[in-house]
Amino acid sequence: MTMIWFHDRLRPAAEVAIDPADRGFTLGDGLFETLACRNGAVDHLDAHLARLVAGARLLDIPLPLPPEKLADALAATLVASGLAEASLRLTLTRGPGPRGLPPPLRPVPTLLITAGPLPPPLPPARLIIASVTRRNEHSPLSRIKSLNFLDNVLARQEALRAGADDALLLNTAGRIAEATAATLFAVIDGVLVTPPLADGALPGVMRGVILVERGAEERSLTRGDLARASELFLSNSLGLRLGSLVRGLG
Amino acid sequence: MTMIWFHDRLRPAAEVAIDPADRGFTLGDGLFETLACRNGAVDHLDAHLARLVAGARLLDIPLPLPPEKLADALAATLVASGLAEASLRLTLTRGPGPRGLPPPLRPVPTLLITAGPLPPPLPPARLIIASVTRRNEHSPLSRIKSLNFLDNVLARQEALRAGADDALLLNTAGRIAEATAATLFAVIDGVLVTPPLADGALPGVMRGVILVERGAEERSLTRGDLARASELFLSNSLGLRLGSLVRGLG
Repeated sequence: MTMIWFHDRLRPAAEVAIDPADRGFTLGDGLFETLACRNGAVDHLDAHLARLVAGARLLDIPLPLPPEKLADALAATLVASGLAEASLRLTLTRGPGPRGLPPPLRPVPTLLITAGPLPPPLPPARLIIASVTRRNEHSPLSRIKSLNFLDNVLARQEALRAGADDALLLNTAGRIAEATAATLFAVIDGVLVTPPLADGALPGVMRGVILVERGAEERSLTRGDLARASELFLSNSLGLRLGSLVRGLG
Repeated sequence: MTMIWFHDRLRPAAEVAIDPADRGFTLGDGLFETLACRNGAVDHLDAHLARLVAGARLLDIPLPLPPEKLADALAATLVASGLAEASLRLTLTRGPGPRGLPPPLRPVPTLLITAGPLPPPLPPARLIIASVTRRNEHSPLSRIKSLNFLDNVLARQEALRAGADDALLLNTAGRIAEATAATLFAVIDGVLVTPPLADGALPGVMRGVILVERGAEERSLTRGDLARASELFLSNSLGLRLGSLVRGLG
């Protein structure tokens, strides 16, 4: 039986239902984290929890559980899944509210954790540069993992329609920000580089690890920079994937 | 008993539950409309349905019912509410999907219509200009009423914390786009003006009505323009509200 962590405990998936007045559903008013688990443990747990806490602070959503209890909930969901390698998704919303934008004075946040299999390593991604939309580096939402994911969905749809696998998003100034669900890294003149947060890159957990462990540099990137990159790859919490720009599609 | 239109018919509210895998909940992947009803009919029904259809086309969400059946569903929800004057909210999402961004090949969209009382006319709004975020006029989401509403929630929170009632959002170029849940109109040198869609204004239904019926002009507006406006007001489908900029708070 599939189990989902809902609010305060694991429950059978069939018993979990979201209130139609949940602001996660009505306004995208919430956050999520996708976490890889290998060998029975969550990778980079502290970094994920820190990003979640930062997002909750920005949105002023109270944490329903302190971080150490969130860690326990993640671990319990992993164990209940019976999976040795898993991908967990934690969703935190502001919970139900009356109509309109003002948050309830005493929000009762919704916490949901689901487990699924860890996807297998993927072949190199054929990438386009999205033309349908731009990532808003002027919004603090570009620096948290909020439920407002539609710009990225639009860019991914554009890529799939073009016969590519993923799209890179430009920011409003025309600089490269990220892929639709991953950080972009490029090797240019022998240097490993990735767009800075100020250009609209999501502060990816794996991005942070690679910056430290591989000594990558944050650098603003244009389309022209990518054209002369000797290597491109995408990183997110589930893994790394090589990429190449598909010319004539972008 | 409160009734909600869910998918294909009215059901008691207690029986309506959103699937935790609904992409409206997981990714903000959907649309909504807020519709005022007076004298037993929906105001500007055709304009609301046209905007919903345009949004669904942009996102490539199939309509679960043709527009005339959506109109019937709205009418049935209004009748079931027993309210003479009501505010309906129609929410349309892409429905449940597996993890990740790619939409399911055969989406089963979620349709939900709820009814509530029409809010009373509001006193003039004390307005600030939001500093926390900017509206992204480079995204086509600025031209549809999507569930990605967090920038506006952040701006409203900033206003409420400052002791104001609402906030005006600047776009990424520093021009005025709109209020958090309403179109801004200003009277400047005797001319009624409102920001153009290209500056990030949502194509509000009431905005369209006022442009035609009052002969308003679309014009890019700066902070400085607002400072010399003789009158400001906000419009949305639920009504009009006078506004004034609160100096020293913005």
